[in-house]
Amino acid sequence: MAGNTFGKVFRVTTWGESHGTGIGAVIDGCPPGIILDPILLQAEMDRRRPGQGGASSPRKEPDQVEILSGIFTPPGEDVSYTTGTPISLAIYNKDAHSKSYDTLRDIFRPGHGDVTYLAKYGIRDHRGGGRASARETAARVAAGAVAKQLLATHGIDVCAYTVALGGIKVRERNLDIINSNRFFCPDAEAAEKMEERVRLVRKEGDTLGGIVEIIADCPAGLGEPVFDKLEAELAHGLMSIGAVKGVEVGAGFQVADMLGSENNDPINPDGFVSNNAGGILAGISNGSQIVLRVAVKPIPSISKEQQSVNLHNEAVTIQVGGRHDISAIPRIIPVCEAMVRLTLADHLLRHMAIIFPGE
Amino acid sequence: MAGNTFGKVFRVTTWGESHGTGIGAVIDGCPPGIILDPILLQAEMDRRRPGQGGASSPRKEPDQVEILSGIFTPPGEDVSYTTGTPISLAIYNKDAHSKSYDTLRDIFRPGHGDVTYLAKYGIRDHRGGGRASARETAARVAAGAVAKQLLATHGIDVCAYTVALGGIKVRERNLDIINSNRFFCPDAEAAEKMEERVRLVRKEGDTLGGIVEIIADCPAGLGEPVFDKLEAELAHGLMSIGAVKGVEVGAGFQVADMLGSENNDPINPDGFVSNNAGGILAGISNGSQIVLRVAVKPIPSISKEQQSVNLHNEAVTIQVGGRHDISAIPRIIPVCEAMVRLTLADHLLRHMAIIFPGE
Amino acid sequence: MAGNTFGKVFRVTTWGESHGTGIGAVIDGCPPGIILDPILLQAEMDRRRPGQGGASSPRKEPDQVEILSGIFTPPGEDVSYTTGTPISLAIYNKDAHSKSYDTLRDIFRPGHGDVTYLAKYGIRDHRGGGRASARETAARVAAGAVAKQLLATHGIDVCAYTVALGGIKVRERNLDIINSNRFFCPDAEAAEKMEERVRLVRKEGDTLGGIVEIIADCPAGLGEPVFDKLEAELAHGLMSIGAVKGVEVGAGFQVADMLGSENNDPINPDGFVSNNAGGILAGISNGSQIVLRVAVKPIPSISKEQQSVNLHNEAVTIQVGGRHDISAIPRIIPVCEAMVRLTLADHLLRHMAIIFPGE
Amino acid sequence: MAGNTFGKVFRVTTWGESHGTGIGAVIDGCPPGIILDPILLQAEMDRRRPGQGGASSPRKEPDQVEILSGIFTPPGEDVSYTTGTPISLAIYNKDAHSKSYDTLRDIFRPGHGDVTYLAKYGIRDHRGGGRASARETAARVAAGAVAKQLLATHGIDVCAYTVALGGIKVRERNLDIINSNRFFCPDAEAAEKMEERVRLVRKEGDTLGGIVEIIADCPAGLGEPVFDKLEAELAHGLMSIGAVKGVEVGAGFQVADMLGSENNDPINPDGFVSNNAGGILAGISNGSQIVLRVAVKPIPSISKEQQSVNLHNEAVTIQVGGRHDISAIPRIIPVCEAMVRLTLADHLLRHMAIIFPGE
Repeated sequence: MAGNTFGKVFRVTTWGESHGTGIGAVIDGCPPGIILDPILLQAEMDRRRPGQGGASSPRKEPDQVEILSGIFTPPGEDVSYTTGTPISLAIYNKDAHSKSYDTLRDIFRPGHGDVTYLAKYGIRDHRGGGRASARETAARVAAGAVAKQLLATHGIDVCAYTVALGGIKVRERNLDIINSNRFFCPDAEAAEKMEERVRLVRKEGDTLGGIVEIIADCPAGLGEPVFDKLEAELAHGLMSIGAVKGVEVGAGFQVADMLGSENNDPINPDGFVSNNAGGILAGISNGSQIVLRVAVKPIPSISKEQQSVNLHNEAVTIQVGGRHDISAIPRIIPVCEAMVRLTLADHLLRHMAIIFPGE
Repeated sequence: MAGNTFGKVFRVTTWGESHGTGIGAVIDGCPPGIILDPILLQAEMDRRRPGQGGASSPRKEPDQVEILSGIFTPPGEDVSYTTGTPISLAIYNKDAHSKSYDTLRDIFRPGHGDVTYLAKYGIRDHRGGGRASARETAARVAAGAVAKQLLATHGIDVCAYTVALGGIKVRERNLDIINSNRFFCPDAEAAEKMEERVRLVRKEGDTLGGIVEIIADCPAGLGEPVFDKLEAELAHGLMSIGAVKGVEVGAGFQVADMLGSENNDPINPDGFVSNNAGGILAGISNGSQIVLRVAVKPIPSISKEQQSVNLHNEAVTIQVGGRHDISAIPRIIPVCEAMVRLTLADHLLRHMAIIFPGE
Repeated sequence: MAGNTFGKVFRVTTWGESHGTGIGAVIDGCPPGIILDPILLQAEMDRRRPGQGGASSPRKEPDQVEILSGIFTPPGEDVSYTTGTPISLAIYNKDAHSKSYDTLRDIFRPGHGDVTYLAKYGIRDHRGGGRASARETAARVAAGAVAKQLLATHGIDVCAYTVALGGIKVRERNLDIINSNRFFCPDAEAAEKMEERVRLVRKEGDTLGGIVEIIADCPAGLGEPVFDKLEAELAHGLMSIGAVKGVEVGAGFQVADMLGSENNDPINPDGFVSNNAGGILAGISNGSQIVLRVAVKPIPSISKEQQSVNLHNEAVTIQVGGRHDISAIPRIIPVCEAMVRLTLADHLLRHMAIIFPGE
Repeated sequence: MAGNTFGKVFRVTTWGESHGTGIGAVIDGCPPGIILDPILLQAEMDRRRPGQGGASSPRKEPDQVEILSGIFTPPGEDVSYTTGTPISLAIYNKDAHSKSYDTLRDIFRPGHGDVTYLAKYGIRDHRGGGRASARETAARVAAGAVAKQLLATHGIDVCAYTVALGGIKVRERNLDIINSNRFFCPDAEAAEKMEERVRLVRKEGDTLGGIVEIIADCPAGLGEPVFDKLEAELAHGLMSIGAVKGVEVGAGFQVADMLGSENNDPINPDGFVSNNAGGILAGISNGSQIVLRVAVKPIPSISKEQQSVNLHNEAVTIQVGGRHDISAIPRIIPVCEAMVRLTLADHLLRHMAIIFPGE
């Protein structure tokens, strides 16, 4: 059973390869009557768009998303609503240079899925990573933008930002400034150092890893013990992003060094006094802010020479050219937000099945 | 849609509360013809059994597992085989003192699911955590033992051990000794220090966190991109264990500080030269050892005085008595193994749907 | 992927063989706060119990159902409520004579699943049909009884009765009398003829087929186009009962001979004028009574001599002894009700995910 | 949880409305390495295309299907193979006159889903039935054509034909001629009478029902007891076609009048002597031909005057104009084949998860 669907009630199925006709998503299970503003949808896509240099690659993808079904503008209105039927979203590829990948046809790139896709499927679309390309995440962002508009009806909001890049860690979390630098970084001084670090590493033909933090304001009660605990589903969604190698919630890996008396969040009549839990207790949101962090690996496409093998298992050296980013950060930021939104939208609807209207 | 089922093809549904009639698991989708040895099943249960003191609580649970369906001993044989029908496993509760929880009926214990279960369901079985109790994981271990016997037919093996407890970290990984100390610790010297640490913290009425590492020998090809990447499903399974607050694969959170040229695992004709990937590339196992780590929070039941509220939202202080462990480690070890086994068993069967016999 | 789970939100997994330890069901997804009366649960089981002679076999199954988890009696109350956690139901086997099946170990019974279970699984529990036994349906009835109590909170009610048996068809549908004869037959005269027919056929060592009609009062709006149309899911549920060979809704197979102008149900301000649709339009309930009929095949276990083969594919003759019914009617009646209830309970909860509380 | 996905391992999600941008299907779970010939795909679409008059409407839909993802032509080959990634299929609408539906905006058409879609979703795309339109089935045919190419690798073949139309029943089943008349009718004489009947009823502005029979050659072993019995899943799939009001397998509703000794299919060393079972025993295919029949209701869009209500629940009369067929037959024929193929493809892959390669 393949794995291209995410969610159980708000269900998103994505399709498409980096260098084929396009990519897309079909959302099944979005409730009817939600206002779906195409402009807001496109705005989310634009946040994922590569910038003009810096950490992002010079490849320009307009990423125009089209809504093919599932919305309706009632006669006399100028607003579109979801109808409860599947919402089909498509992003057609325009700027795909398959030619530039011809040299990689017979070689496995280190750190990429070339070798595993072939091992699994016995056949491989070698052009730009095919289905394993980061381009696939554009479909997630499109679907996540629909989830965003659904969540807004319940006051649920999600925000991601960079807390580490190339070894530089933030010392403060000033969320007011995250849109004023291209790393979505909440610490202006750190952002400057990150710029410097990126510039240096670009020269060396190398790439950088980092850490993204995601927070969500969310009412208490979401999450489905025991296997679909909210943190388990969030970890699933975030870890399904190609570059992510670790996920933690609340105090995360720090809990290993803590005492129970330190880690427990005391409760007083105004609520929780601290938030080591990261907003989730026993798999269910507790009304505190949900706090997650993901470890983002350096992009594996580097122009430095690497050791690898070809299809005949002969040793070769490889330098990956093409138009590549220095780090998955910042473009992974809206993808992280999308995965958290898709998870929360699913759990919002899942929870509704046990709340009887009228009760 | 509730969340008490794990897996999509090898599917496990658990049921039961800590202080009810019992707990159990129903496995649907186990292939027929697998030898199911009840003694091996019980042996796994026994690994999770509390010890005589130390980090584990003095509560003694025999945890006798009964196989109620799904196996058959052909006439003339003395071995039982799975039949392809659902395998129902039950562990009846014997040593459950609900009385000792009566004082907690009206108080929310910090760090526990008391407050969130009530927020979600509007009703709560207050006895020993009910469904949120660690006791629920016994059913996972039972189901995981069935998965173990299935995986053995394909040479897949899983092993977990402690790499940190109460701030004490292992310096070596000598797997030969993990069964010779009660922390399943691969470093004898560290194990001794852990003993000392536990003794001290027990006196203080406090508890400890730690880190568990899980490794698996697994053939290449398992995992279902893009959402059900192997690491995403493993993270889901591990993060669904109550005490786990973080999951990482391979180099994990260290990738944040690494360069692409450091993190990429070079390939030569003998295979991968390093294993920062932790055995998974683009969501598919690559044939290297799968390496995972989880952060385990300190057990929230402490006898130190804590600040909380009661059902009327009045401030109270609370000291949690009862028979509790100092750390989820080591009893969480077989639970981690079980979740990894259940995930791999599911992915083994999922992968088989795309391999055509005869091809 | 095996198929022992029914439903997507109200999900029932059954387990067990006819001559093993017992059978059971785990319900995941039942909302919390539903009163679950064990006496009402047992009452449903008793309706399926074999009678003293007549169309039913003399085998006496007490079919005592036990609730192992998922309910809670709050302190000070004497009523049990569902808690939102899995409800585990078990019926332990007591009166199972496996010995009487020893003669059938090597022979395939015509009309039974002996040959197909072996073809599929390569191993077969030959005792009394194993998992393919009608006994498995007791678990469905137990789960259906839980669904009944859930549906009652929304005024949904289901009723099944016999409209044909052994060629004798009812001429009226007087539902007041269906509990006053052992065929659940709404036509007293037809019921008498059925008695006579059963007596005759019993002497001949043969068995009878028939038709069951199921009606349900159900609000408009349930059903999930396009693949999970309400009639499609009901057909799935009913056709999954072993003896059922056909399912129809409303006018059913008669529509083949009708004109559009005859078949369309006109609408007036008071509602639908007729009900050829059987209460469902375009896959969604329309508020009219849901009307279904199923064709029930004669029980294949007959004492007449039949032609078959043994495990070595040698021709043999076979006479099936043991304690068997003359017809699946009436014992299939509560099973049909159960499958319709499980389907409607699932669709009630599925529908709730798109109704926003407060709207 | 919405219902626009069919299948569990070979999973098809359809999207689109009759008068929107287009319709489509995403297939997730198709194994890699299957040759996918776009010409064969289009050939299936063409079988569903409306004819030049007769039982079909004059609306001309080119129904050009585009394959947007999931296939790859290896360098140097001219054949496309599936890659194991999602196959996205789109059929863009071209000849959709939404204007002609404007008069129906405020009126509920009898026999249509107008009233139930509004009841369920609170919003309705009134143009040509929206999602409830028969046009949606074009996406099923496209997906079914992919399933056909998968099934061919295992020798599984499906064929549907008309056995009754407007009260005229076939007396023979000469499958050689089903493509030589426009009803896919296996009885030349009956086909002529059907022509006559259609001509007459067209004049009267009325429509006709009928019966379609579907047969499949299928190896033994497919089907997943107990809830996903093969006949249950086939019934689900077929009953999910808008016009279908009944489904039967093998002897179907005739079993109600049969004795066990008549209905049981004797077995001899060459196999089953008869096929009342319709190729399925206890939910698993037995190697005999699978035989199914569905009752097809007359198309509800008739030009005769009908009684209905408008959005204000006021009595109105309605005559449905537009370009409509006289019967869902023959266009439903390839749709029935598609649903049976999708079901069998899913069960073929589901079965593979329990066959261990090498055993």
